[in-house]
Amino acid sequence: MPAIAFLECVRCHHQVSAATPQTLCPLCAGSLYVRYDMDALKQTAHRDSPAQYAAASPASLGMWRYKDVLPDVTPVTLGEGWTPMLQSKRYPGLYIKEEGANPTGTFKARGLGLAVTMAKHYGLEHLAVPSAGNAAGALAAYAAAAGIAAHIFMPQDVPLANYLEGIVYGADVTMVDGLISDCARLVGENIKAQKAANTPANQVWFDISTLKEPFRVEGKKTMGYELVEQLGWTYPDAVFYPTGGGVGLIGMWKAFEEMEQLGWVSGKRPKMYALQASGCAPMATAYEQGKDVSTFFENAATFAAGLRVPKPYGDAIILEIVRESGGKALAYPDETLLASLLDWAKHEGIFLSPEGAAATAAYDALIAGGDLKTTDKVVLFNTGAGLKYTDMTADAMHLKRPGTLPKSMPVGGIITPV
Amino acid sequence: MPAIAFLECVRCHHQVSAATPQTLCPLCAGSLYVRYDMDALKQTAHRDSPAQYAAASPASLGMWRYKDVLPDVTPVTLGEGWTPMLQSKRYPGLYIKEEGANPTGTFKARGLGLAVTMAKHYGLEHLAVPSAGNAAGALAAYAAAAGIAAHIFMPQDVPLANYLEGIVYGADVTMVDGLISDCARLVGENIKAQKAANTPANQVWFDISTLKEPFRVEGKKTMGYELVEQLGWTYPDAVFYPTGGGVGLIGMWKAFEEMEQLGWVSGKRPKMYALQASGCAPMATAYEQGKDVSTFFENAATFAAGLRVPKPYGDAIILEIVRESGGKALAYPDETLLASLLDWAKHEGIFLSPEGAAATAAYDALIAGGDLKTTDKVVLFNTGAGLKYTDMTADAMHLKRPGTLPKSMPVGGIITPV
Repeated sequence: MPAIAFLECVRCHHQVSAATPQTLCPLCAGSLYVRYDMDALKQTAHRDSPAQYAAASPASLGMWRYKDVLPDVTPVTLGEGWTPMLQSKRYPGLYIKEEGANPTGTFKARGLGLAVTMAKHYGLEHLAVPSAGNAAGALAAYAAAAGIAAHIFMPQDVPLANYLEGIVYGADVTMVDGLISDCARLVGENIKAQKAANTPANQVWFDISTLKEPFRVEGKKTMGYELVEQLGWTYPDAVFYPTGGGVGLIGMWKAFEEMEQLGWVSGKRPKMYALQASGCAPMATAYEQGKDVSTFFENAATFAAGLRVPKPYGDAIILEIVRESGGKALAYPDETLLASLLDWAKHEGIFLSPEGAAATAAYDALIAGGDLKTTDKVVLFNTGAGLKYTDMTADAMHLKRPGTLPKSMPVGGIITPV
Repeated sequence: MPAIAFLECVRCHHQVSAATPQTLCPLCAGSLYVRYDMDALKQTAHRDSPAQYAAASPASLGMWRYKDVLPDVTPVTLGEGWTPMLQSKRYPGLYIKEEGANPTGTFKARGLGLAVTMAKHYGLEHLAVPSAGNAAGALAAYAAAAGIAAHIFMPQDVPLANYLEGIVYGADVTMVDGLISDCARLVGENIKAQKAANTPANQVWFDISTLKEPFRVEGKKTMGYELVEQLGWTYPDAVFYPTGGGVGLIGMWKAFEEMEQLGWVSGKRPKMYALQASGCAPMATAYEQGKDVSTFFENAATFAAGLRVPKPYGDAIILEIVRESGGKALAYPDETLLASLLDWAKHEGIFLSPEGAAATAAYDALIAGGDLKTTDKVVLFNTGAGLKYTDMTADAMHLKRPGTLPKSMPVGGIITPV
């Protein structure tokens, strides 16, 4: 496991030491990336090592099979990463990366697994996060595992699962009558007030918002390593990624760059598709309009709760990656997402999250329109378990809980045994 | 992958061919086990093969890493198996086997993954199952993946997740005002009526109830292989297993026997603990009373929905294994289960299913009573994801959905941004 050489601002390339906890670039407020000595790493890191590490340590290595390219610290782990890559039963070129198998049921476990690992390494005692729901649940879990206090802020109408995980993991939970943008403001105001009140440094919250500290993107990059390893160290033609904050996409792009420097993969990088719901589509709108940054998306509303991010902090980076790769940012209405979700469950046995259904809806549409061939090699991310959204999905389907159903149900019926 | 030598009745040892689909022993109605030619297998199956297969085929081999000891057929797979083994952060000898990472969020995916694989191999077109909830969801998923019709019967007060997965996967769902025992009777009556009406053979439902066909136990045995491989091909001192139908426990015992015959493991087998909720404790009652079979448990009621099995079909086998191994069958009240669930979430970052909490409640009690040492090597199964039971667990905690909470909540509060 390599030492961190420095943290580098993604905007102005200013370098900062990783010896103490960092947030944003002190010069321009850009996001900081973790950088290693890649020449040294080329001598020590080999692409056959992950499989060897996993075979030698079969109990839950997960994403830490990539310890050669992650910070040299003691992991706080709940078994995150190394999720299944499922071949589609209908489309020969399509693979589903099933991130619902992660702890807390979403890909958020990767970023927060690493960010909490580093927080523990730095001795931080209070972590705070604004969230559309799943990052809050993941922070609550990893903070509990690390013995660190978690302060989580999320919209009051998140799926019940997100609220409940905050409570059961013992986090300090604040439900906000608003969106993640309102939550972010509240976290910032709290921290400002704590500092103004001369709160002891170890009691001031550390803002573990995505891209406002260096390690969530660093954890999420493991998705990029995994998809390439699971395809036999080759790139697919395209990656379809449901995009709320978009940090998974950003992390994968960082992984591709590193892997190329290490000689682990070569060839044309995949086209990166950022997929959204029409009810909250800042990236698709900016892409369509040819803009370099997004505009705050007013009145965001979609049952894909994780996509309710009206202005992603990494919008400029996402748009650059999408365009540079030859991909697209697209959005479809909730009805189309729901229809795709049901189609994939019935015909492939995969219960997507509503966010995952934004990606399949786009795939369905591009195949139907001839923009994509069924033989094109595509890795499509289901970013969360459909089971985490039972209430949202049942609501979207206008389904009622069994027991309150009328005697004549469309499917099956209540039977009272005699 | 080995050919099946024959199917053997666990009671009278009668042998049946596996060339056609089988249910119970035609002589004594005992359960049938899959048997291979173990002498031949000793020559071809090696315990280093699973890791080699996994390294060579990184995309979701899952439980099929054990293809050397599974039937030689084309898998219907959704990425089941090879779940994390998490070391406890508090108890040095304790490992949590996290079965919530499986497709459909429970260990049921292993048994139904293999049973549906075999059903497809045999050309069956209609599968039916009575279920406490999770087997129904798993059958619905794998049947959808295989293109086979699923007819599922479950209590009307199962977790919402179980009902919803039946609907989204497109199964024929019947919600029953009763328990799994009522569901089983209804499945049997339907099949009897179909046969009486001279329904064409390919339209008659095949009863894929646990232990009433040979392959669910065969899929679940992979938990036994996995726990031994993940402990470096050694046995733990004890296995703690939440026991509804108890087939996971039965499958692991079969795995231990096979592994010993193959020379993959040796030494004293683990003490097998069957853990239940006091509200439905047929096994703990029979164990306590020194009986060889269980008595139907009247008025079964517990929030651990998967444990609501008033008389397991494999009761005699379970009691024999528990006693032979030196383990115990124990039950604790729902309040104790809930307290343990919350304790484990807060202190380990693991959100247990209510069934998993039956196992931790027992572990907590035996540690507190001095019957077990914290250094004893114990593998404890969390049989399902806590996230699959959000409604049941929130109800048990008397929690209300955010948005309907009073302004003064015990944890956090609703904030309206100004």
